[in-house]
Amino acid sequence: MSDAPKEIETLIELMARLPGLGPRSARRAVLQLVRKRATLLRPLAEAMAAVAENARECVVCRNVATRDVCDICASERRANGQICVVEDVADLWAMERAAVFKGRYHVLGGTLSALDAIGPEELGIPRLVRRVADEGVTEVILALNATVDGQTTAHYIADALAGSGATVTSLAQGVPVGGELDYLDDGTITAALRARKAL
Amino acid sequence: MSDAPKEIETLIELMARLPGLGPRSARRAVLQLVRKRATLLRPLAEAMAAVAENARECVVCRNVATRDVCDICASERRANGQICVVEDVADLWAMERAAVFKGRYHVLGGTLSALDAIGPEELGIPRLVRRVADEGVTEVILALNATVDGQTTAHYIADALAGSGATVTSLAQGVPVGGELDYLDDGTITAALRARKAL
Repeated sequence: MSDAPKEIETLIELMARLPGLGPRSARRAVLQLVRKRATLLRPLAEAMAAVAENARECVVCRNVATRDVCDICASERRANGQICVVEDVADLWAMERAAVFKGRYHVLGGTLSALDAIGPEELGIPRLVRRVADEGVTEVILALNATVDGQTTAHYIADALAGSGATVTSLAQGVPVGGELDYLDDGTITAALRARKAL
Repeated sequence: MSDAPKEIETLIELMARLPGLGPRSARRAVLQLVRKRATLLRPLAEAMAAVAENARECVVCRNVATRDVCDICASERRANGQICVVEDVADLWAMERAAVFKGRYHVLGGTLSALDAIGPEELGIPRLVRRVADEGVTEVILALNATVDGQTTAHYIADALAGSGATVTSLAQGVPVGGELDYLDDGTITAALRARKAL
């Protein structure tokens, strides 16, 4: 409640439902929008309407797309026999920013969770298994978060792909670039020590 | 950059310009919006378009309004001879949430600042002085932030209203309700001690 006119109140309530914004920051954001009606609010309304109109899930990999098949799946140059499995579109974007992976993706959209009734079907794992066979995939790289749920899901996928002929790999664990040992948790140090390499 | 389709990239860039959201949280918010296209994105686009269409500044007090004169200035019941001066619409909303002030407002839209070339004219102070005369105002309550800029502006307004016949008051300074002394700054404790009252 902020005693603003109804239209503005509605906008504040909707903005407060965005991750990272609470009621207070939603009010601040809306005031900023009202102040910058021409330069920010109107373009934002139009951009949202455009995305609402066009955004969908890629039918192949579940990436966010504006066509049925996303740009990565549509690009022949990305058919290099590698599929990188990520939990979320945000993780796919993070991989793309690194600009080092040249293959295609499979976006799970979450991790296995009995509690939330998320099984292999919800994560599209049977579809991933079919893609591996159909697209002649030689390597599936599991780029899941290094959390318990992420690792449980990774093991399930590795089992599901056991007879597929594709190699299943996962991202290396170790010290992040620029990381200081003093700030790392024990698990990371243990993993980095176990995977130590000769210089 | 997130290698998303152009429409989504545009939306991320615009969202990142909102106060409280950076590039990373803007990406998260946009992914959430894409996931909740029907329940959040579309209503938000419509709410923004409605506000962009209708929002304006109240010609009397500079509050945010959807008509030329805001609801508070339009209400005869709020003409009680008191005007509360606030820096920002967010402050007006905070006063209204407290639901204790029954008069009208004047929104400065900032504080005096030689550096940013914000003078009395930009803050509508001459207009405030005219309103005090025209509306038969008996008390002007300065509810400015307890910052150096806020207090400088408060003194300027008090001087400008010196010959108007209206009493100029300001919010009391002291210990906030529920406040613990140990967490208060020295200035607040000094102000609270100076303004102590007999029980």
